[in-house]
Amino acid sequence: MKQTLKATLRYDGTAFSGWQVQPGQRTVQGVIEEALSTMAQAPVRVHGAGRTDAGVHALGQACSWEWEGAMPPERVRRSLSCMLAPEVRVEEVAIASADFHARFSARAKRYVYTLELGKEQDPFSARYAWLVAPELDLSLLAQAAQALVGEHDFAGYQGGGASAGATVRAIYGIGLKQGGVIGPCDADSLWRLEFHGNGFLYKMVRNITGTLVDIARGHLPPARVRDLLDSPGPYHGNTAPAHGLALAEVIY
Amino acid sequence: MKQTLKATLRYDGTAFSGWQVQPGQRTVQGVIEEALSTMAQAPVRVHGAGRTDAGVHALGQACSWEWEGAMPPERVRRSLSCMLAPEVRVEEVAIASADFHARFSARAKRYVYTLELGKEQDPFSARYAWLVAPELDLSLLAQAAQALVGEHDFAGYQGGGASAGATVRAIYGIGLKQGGVIGPCDADSLWRLEFHGNGFLYKMVRNITGTLVDIARGHLPPARVRDLLDSPGPYHGNTAPAHGLALAEVIY
Repeated sequence: MKQTLKATLRYDGTAFSGWQVQPGQRTVQGVIEEALSTMAQAPVRVHGAGRTDAGVHALGQACSWEWEGAMPPERVRRSLSCMLAPEVRVEEVAIASADFHARFSARAKRYVYTLELGKEQDPFSARYAWLVAPELDLSLLAQAAQALVGEHDFAGYQGGGASAGATVRAIYGIGLKQGGVIGPCDADSLWRLEFHGNGFLYKMVRNITGTLVDIARGHLPPARVRDLLDSPGPYHGNTAPAHGLALAEVIY
Repeated sequence: MKQTLKATLRYDGTAFSGWQVQPGQRTVQGVIEEALSTMAQAPVRVHGAGRTDAGVHALGQACSWEWEGAMPPERVRRSLSCMLAPEVRVEEVAIASADFHARFSARAKRYVYTLELGKEQDPFSARYAWLVAPELDLSLLAQAAQALVGEHDFAGYQGGGASAGATVRAIYGIGLKQGGVIGPCDADSLWRLEFHGNGFLYKMVRNITGTLVDIARGHLPPARVRDLLDSPGPYHGNTAPAHGLALAEVIY
């Protein structure tokens, strides 16, 4: 009996070369496919909702795969979890409809980007937040971000080397809140940008964050946000480092 | 001009063999003494307020040392910080009175021990919380802890191999709160025990936590808390693992 299974994953991306399988590299997709293939005693190909880059974390990544057999989903989850390193936790495995595909069925995604405002990095945020100078105009940052909300062609924010394809996406909201989601929970110096949209291009969240931080530093005019929306791309500018980013949720 | 300097430190203990200098081991005291000795071009001996064990973290450790020269404390802090790995942050350096000693002058300390209630460890709490089965009676745990509050001879909670000395200490309070201080800030599965007292014996916080968790699991009767207070020690029982513990604050 063939069925489609869907899993929700949480992982610390520090020690992975990103999501996507690459020869000779330790990737999240790679370790999951290896574990599932061992369980199935046949090759299993897993589809992820978002291809997180090297160092990017996930609070709620989703993936799906075709699965032969009648093992209850909770047993698949437990077996899979046991075979993975502690950096990856399988939160849930469920039976999905036959045509479900973690990437193509996704309706929306939430990403969180964490900034640390300070001169020296907190030892507990070093793997989860981007250290930026404390002289950052946060209200300017939050205000500049609003020009991105809505449906736009985001080609100007897409990283070089992306595969060709449609570049129109809708951002439903960009919020700025104090506090981090991973790391020191008591640190006043942490701020997070929450992105909610129907999809994000290659490196789009990190490129938007890099531009917003440069505006908040006074290195770029706020109008730069719109200029990039009118640009054909690829993005040229500051890219926020991978370790500050986490894929928070995939919505179906 | 000789003066006594006091520093406040924050560190991730994961990659250290504890605070205290040990030949051939990487310790927090060791890396700080090495950096200060390089700065002073003469050996510097540092006194820590608490000798945290291997894997124990610090949100607010304190230390002191004798310092020759007139470099402003903030410059000492910056130079020292630059020479240390990102796992250690020097929060503050200040001039203390000539007779100040980080260990002997300490009036009180706060420790935090973090528990994760669940079947599998969260990838972001793996270095900061002790995973315990979710069937833990937390109200029983909080209640049993109250028998320890006050001045007692804590010899029965002292770890074996401690150096001889007075074993009477006062615990001002033990609180149980939801949420961790380091790790995933959104996890409902994290709970922390906050200890406040005038001093803690070798492994005392971890041994108390081990006993309280065994009581909350139903493996030991609540009366065990008092029985150990009447015992000459050293402690025999479950010791909570080091990585769940953090020295939160030293009060002078």
